[in-house]
Amino acid sequence: MVKTAIILAAGMGSRIRNRIKERPKGFLIFDEKPIIESSILKLLDSGITKIIIGTGYQKEEYEKLALKYPQIHCVYNPKYAITGSMSTLYQVKDSIKEDFLLLESDLLYEKKALERVIECEQPDVILASNRTNSGDEVYIEVDEYNHLVNLSKKQEQLKSIFAELVGISKLSYSTFQKVCNDVKERLSTDEKVDYEDGLVSIAKEVNIFVHKLNDLAWCEVDNEEHWLRAMQTVYPMIKARDTSQPSVKRNILLNPGPATTTDTVKNAQVVPDICPRENEFGELMEFVSTRLTDFVATNEDYTTVLLGGSGTAAVESIFSSVINQETVVIVNNGAYGGRMCKIATIYGLDFLEYKSPEDKAIDLDDLEKFIKNAATKVSYLAIVHCETSTGLLNNIEEVGELCNKYSITMIVDAMSSFGAIPIDMRKMNIQYLAASSNKNLQGMAGVSFVIAQKEHLEKTRQNKPRNLYLHLYDQYHYFKKNKQMRFTPPVQTLYALKQAIIETEMEGIQNRYQRYSKSWETLISNISRLGLTHLIDKKHHSKIITSIIEPTNENYNFTEMHDYFYKKGFTIYPGKISSQNTFRVANIGAITYKDIEKFIDLLEEYLHEIQGRGESS
Amino acid sequence: MVKTAIILAAGMGSRIRNRIKERPKGFLIFDEKPIIESSILKLLDSGITKIIIGTGYQKEEYEKLALKYPQIHCVYNPKYAITGSMSTLYQVKDSIKEDFLLLESDLLYEKKALERVIECEQPDVILASNRTNSGDEVYIEVDEYNHLVNLSKKQEQLKSIFAELVGISKLSYSTFQKVCNDVKERLSTDEKVDYEDGLVSIAKEVNIFVHKLNDLAWCEVDNEEHWLRAMQTVYPMIKARDTSQPSVKRNILLNPGPATTTDTVKNAQVVPDICPRENEFGELMEFVSTRLTDFVATNEDYTTVLLGGSGTAAVESIFSSVINQETVVIVNNGAYGGRMCKIATIYGLDFLEYKSPEDKAIDLDDLEKFIKNAATKVSYLAIVHCETSTGLLNNIEEVGELCNKYSITMIVDAMSSFGAIPIDMRKMNIQYLAASSNKNLQGMAGVSFVIAQKEHLEKTRQNKPRNLYLHLYDQYHYFKKNKQMRFTPPVQTLYALKQAIIETEMEGIQNRYQRYSKSWETLISNISRLGLTHLIDKKHHSKIITSIIEPTNENYNFTEMHDYFYKKGFTIYPGKISSQNTFRVANIGAITYKDIEKFIDLLEEYLHEIQGRGESS
Repeated sequence: MVKTAIILAAGMGSRIRNRIKERPKGFLIFDEKPIIESSILKLLDSGITKIIIGTGYQKEEYEKLALKYPQIHCVYNPKYAITGSMSTLYQVKDSIKEDFLLLESDLLYEKKALERVIECEQPDVILASNRTNSGDEVYIEVDEYNHLVNLSKKQEQLKSIFAELVGISKLSYSTFQKVCNDVKERLSTDEKVDYEDGLVSIAKEVNIFVHKLNDLAWCEVDNEEHWLRAMQTVYPMIKARDTSQPSVKRNILLNPGPATTTDTVKNAQVVPDICPRENEFGELMEFVSTRLTDFVATNEDYTTVLLGGSGTAAVESIFSSVINQETVVIVNNGAYGGRMCKIATIYGLDFLEYKSPEDKAIDLDDLEKFIKNAATKVSYLAIVHCETSTGLLNNIEEVGELCNKYSITMIVDAMSSFGAIPIDMRKMNIQYLAASSNKNLQGMAGVSFVIAQKEHLEKTRQNKPRNLYLHLYDQYHYFKKNKQMRFTPPVQTLYALKQAIIETEMEGIQNRYQRYSKSWETLISNISRLGLTHLIDKKHHSKIITSIIEPTNENYNFTEMHDYFYKKGFTIYPGKISSQNTFRVANIGAITYKDIEKFIDLLEEYLHEIQGRGESS
Repeated sequence: MVKTAIILAAGMGSRIRNRIKERPKGFLIFDEKPIIESSILKLLDSGITKIIIGTGYQKEEYEKLALKYPQIHCVYNPKYAITGSMSTLYQVKDSIKEDFLLLESDLLYEKKALERVIECEQPDVILASNRTNSGDEVYIEVDEYNHLVNLSKKQEQLKSIFAELVGISKLSYSTFQKVCNDVKERLSTDEKVDYEDGLVSIAKEVNIFVHKLNDLAWCEVDNEEHWLRAMQTVYPMIKARDTSQPSVKRNILLNPGPATTTDTVKNAQVVPDICPRENEFGELMEFVSTRLTDFVATNEDYTTVLLGGSGTAAVESIFSSVINQETVVIVNNGAYGGRMCKIATIYGLDFLEYKSPEDKAIDLDDLEKFIKNAATKVSYLAIVHCETSTGLLNNIEEVGELCNKYSITMIVDAMSSFGAIPIDMRKMNIQYLAASSNKNLQGMAGVSFVIAQKEHLEKTRQNKPRNLYLHLYDQYHYFKKNKQMRFTPPVQTLYALKQAIIETEMEGIQNRYQRYSKSWETLISNISRLGLTHLIDKKHHSKIITSIIEPTNENYNFTEMHDYFYKKGFTIYPGKISSQNTFRVANIGAITYKDIEKFIDLLEEYLHEIQGRGESS
C-alpha cells in the first residue's frame, strides 16, 4: 500500500490574496485549521507515513509545519515564481524511490477521496468527480477504458468531457520516472509546465486510470468565489461526512414524504444542547431561511418564515394571516386543493372553489372564464403545485401568467415539489409559497415554512389576527427583529434541515430532479411491463409520486402487499382518490433508480405469487 | 482481571410460568433473545472467557446453549427442587480455582454493571442500586465502610437500608472457599439456603464491599409485574444505553427549557427512516400518549392529544377548540397568564382577566369573590401552574377546589411543571392540561400535548371549529380512529420523547423533583451568600426557575455576564418582568446540584471580577 504523499504547494495564490494575506494558499483557515493541516491529518489517518511538500512562495510556513509533524519533508523550488507545478514536482525526484499520492495544496476533500484512490488496484490513478460548476474546473477526456486522454480547462479543447479533475492522484514510481524524463528538457528552458501537462504527455505511453466518484464532497480554493462555496456548502458537507456516526439501517420510503434521508442528515440531529434564543441558534435559523429563499427567489425581495409544524400549518398560516375580506379562488383538483377549501371554510373566507378533474391538466381557458365571471373581484388564487394525491403537476407558470394578467396574488402549495422541481417565484408571479422540511429537501419532519414576497407580506401587518401560533406577519417580524422564533422551535430538526439544505445545494435542484426523473422512468417503464397502468399521463406528471391502478387479480390485497414490502424495507402508500382503486409510489428522497429496480423485482415476485395462488375460495 | 463467571440458573421460576412455559427463567425472551443469552454476550464482551451455569430445572435448555457457546460449562444440581441457590453454587466448587463473577439468571442489566464490578479494586464486591420499588427487592445493610452487614427482603429485619441488591457480585476464590466450608453442614441437611445467606454469614469474617451505583438500569424478572416493568421501561433503557453512540459535548442549559438532555435521548433521534402513517409508528405515538397520561391521570378517564408544535400551540389548541360562547376567567400573574389573555382576545372569547401580582401568591378569597361577582356564569378558569417568567408556583390544588365548588372547568398551563412537580388531574379537578416535550421531560423541542378529561373533550365535538391545525377534538378523534396524526408529526422528536419518558419513569417524578429541589437549594443558599436576592419567597417558589435581582454594581451587564457563562458551557436567561431588573436561572434538565455548584463558582468569580474593576469612567 502506498505510504508516501507529495503535496504541491509552491504557488503564490494571487487570486485569493485578500483571504490569506502573506501566507501561502494552503494556510487558508477552515474551522481554525489551515487546509493543508487538515489534509495532512487525513493523509496520516489513511496510512501515509511520509509527506513531501514541494514549497516555493513563503516556504517558511511549511517548514514551521514540518516541525510539528515529523512526517513532513519540505523540498524547495527556488524558481516557483516563474515555473509551473511540474517544476516543483520535478524537484522532488531525488527524494523518492516509491509509489506516492500526489495532491494539490489548496484542496478540501472528504476522507473517502483518499481511501478510494489508495484502494484502487491500478498503479496510476487520477481521481475525478462529476461536474461541480464551481468555476476554473479542469475537465477530463478519457478513452473507452477510462484511461486518461487529455486534460483542459477549456471544454472546446476536448472531444468529450468525462469528468472533472479533483487534484488527488496516485503515481507509481516507474511512471513518475518516465514523467520526469519526458519533461526534463521543457523544464530546462524555464517553461511554465503544470503537473497536469506532465500527466497528459505520459498518458500516451502509460495507462493512467481515471477513477470517477459521483458523490464526492470536495473543492479547491483558488479564488473568492471558491472560498464562498467552500465555506457555505462544501466544507460543512465534508465535515458532516467525515464525522458521521456508523450508518443506520436503510429503509426505502416510497410514501410521499417523510422521505428517505442520508445518514449525515440523521446524525446532524445529534448536537450539544442549545437554547434556541441564543445568537448561535439565530444564525442557524437565518442560514436555513436565506438558503430556502435562494432555492426559488432572491432574499432581496422574498423572505422565508419558518414555523414549527407540518406543511398544513404553513398553508393555514398563509390563508389565515394574509387574506382579509377579499375573494380567493381555490383550484381544487385533489385532496390538497380540497384541504385549502376546508381551511378557507373554517376561517369564513370569501372563496370560490374552482373544481378541476383529479386526473387531467387544468383547462386554463376555463379557469380564466371562471375568474372573469366571478361576482366579486378576485384578489387571490391558491393552487397546489404537485398534487400528492395523484402525482398531477399543475402548470403554475401558466396559472401565474393568468394571475399576473388579472392582478391576482398567487399562493402555491409546493409541499411535494419544492427542492426537486425548479421554481422561480418572481418569474412565475408567485407571492406566497408553502413547503416543508421532510419531502424533497430530504430533511426531518417538524419544520414547515412560507416563502413570501416581502412587499406583500409587509402589507398584511394591519390584518386583524385570526390566531396566534400561525400568525405569519408576527412570526416574520419577530424573527427579523430578534433573530429568534416567537415560540420554541424544533431545535434538532432545524440542525437536520441545515444539513439537508447543504446536501440539496451540493447536488443541485436540477440534478436532484434528474435523479428523481430517472427513478420515475424506471418505475413507469417497468410497471407497464408488468401489465399495470398509472393514473396521470406522462405529459402532466410530476415524476415525483405515481398513482398506480390496483391489479385486478382477485388475490390482490393492498394491506398484504404493503406488509410484504414493509418486511423487506420498502414502504408503499395507499391511494387517495375516490374514483378508482389506486396505490401510490413516490420516488423522492435519498434513493436512486437502483432502489426502484429492487422494488420492481419485489413487485414482480409478488404479482407472480398472487397469480400463482389460483382463485381464492 | 476476573475471567470466570458463575450463573445460578437452577430455579423453577414458578411465579412467571405463564410467560416461560416449560423453559427455565433465563429463557424469557426480550427482543427475540433469551435474557440468559444477552447476559452471556455481555459477559464475553467484558472479558469473561469461562462461564459456569449452575443448572437444575430443565437443565437441557442450558446444555443446548453450551453447544452454541463453548465458553459455557453446565454443572447440575440434582436437588434443585428442594434446595436453595447456595446449594447450586456449592456444586460448582470443584470446577473452580479462581476469582469469579456471580450472577443470577433472570437479570436484565446494562453493560456498565459488569464493567463497574470488574474494575472495583476490592476482592469481594456485591453490586447495589438505589431503591427501585419494583416489588420483591432484597435490601442491604452496611457498616460505616460500606461493608455488607445483612441482606433481607424484609425491611424491618435491617437496622438501616443502604441500597438494593442487584444480583451481580465478585468473589475471590479464598472467600468462596470460606463460604463453602461455612455452609457445608447446613447444606448436608438439605436446608433451603440461598447464596445471599452464604454471603451474609461470611461477611462477619471477610469484608464484602457493597458497590452502589445510583443510576443503573437493571431488573430481575421473577413475576408478571417485573416482566411488565422490564418490557416497558427497564429493557428499552438498557438497550438505549448499551447501544448509545459516543457522547456529545455537554452544555448546562440554565434557561427554562429546552433543557439539558441525556446522550441517550439525543441518540434516540437517529433511527431508520419510517413513514409516520405506519402501524409501527402509531404504536410509538400510543406509547408516548398513554405514558404521558399516566404521569398525571388514568388513561381510562383522560387522554393525551399530541401536537407538532411548541407549548403555545397546545395552549392555543385548548382555548380555540374547547371554549365556545361561555365565560372564562384567566388568572394573569405573569407573562404566560398574559399570553392566555392574548389568545382569548384574538379568538374573541368572553374572558375575564383576573390580575394578581407577579411576585406574590394568589389571594384565593379575592379570586373567589371575583368569580362570584362576575356578571355572567363562569364556565372555565385558566391558570398557569409554574410561571416561567418569575418562578412563582400557583397553588392549583386550592384553585381546583374553588373550580369544583363553582362547577368550573379548569385549564392548566403546566408547561414548566409537568414531569417535575407531581400533578393529579382528577384530585386537583383539572380537565385540561397543556405541556411540552422539552422541559422537565428532558426531551427535544417540537412536540406539545394536551391532556384532557375524555368526557369533557367528547362534548367539544359539536363546537364550531376556529382553526384546522390546532383543532383539539379532530386531532384526538383522528388519532383514536387511525392511530395516525392528522398531519405529518415530528417523527424523530417523538422517538426522542419516548426515550425521555422512559428515563422519567426510571427516575420517577418524585425523585426528579427531589433532584431539582437539591439543585435549587444549592442555588438559593449560594446566591444569598454572594449577596444576591431572588424575587419569589421560598414558600411559593416552584424550585424550577428563579428570578434573581440583578447586582447593583455599575460594572454589571447582563449580556456580558451571559457571554462569560456561555463560553464556559453554561446558558443563563434574561428576566421577563417589568417591575424589577432580574435575570433567570432554571435548574431543570439532566443536571445535578454539582453543575449548580460549578455555576456558582463561575458566578462568584464574575462578581468578584466586576467588583475589582473599579468604577467605570
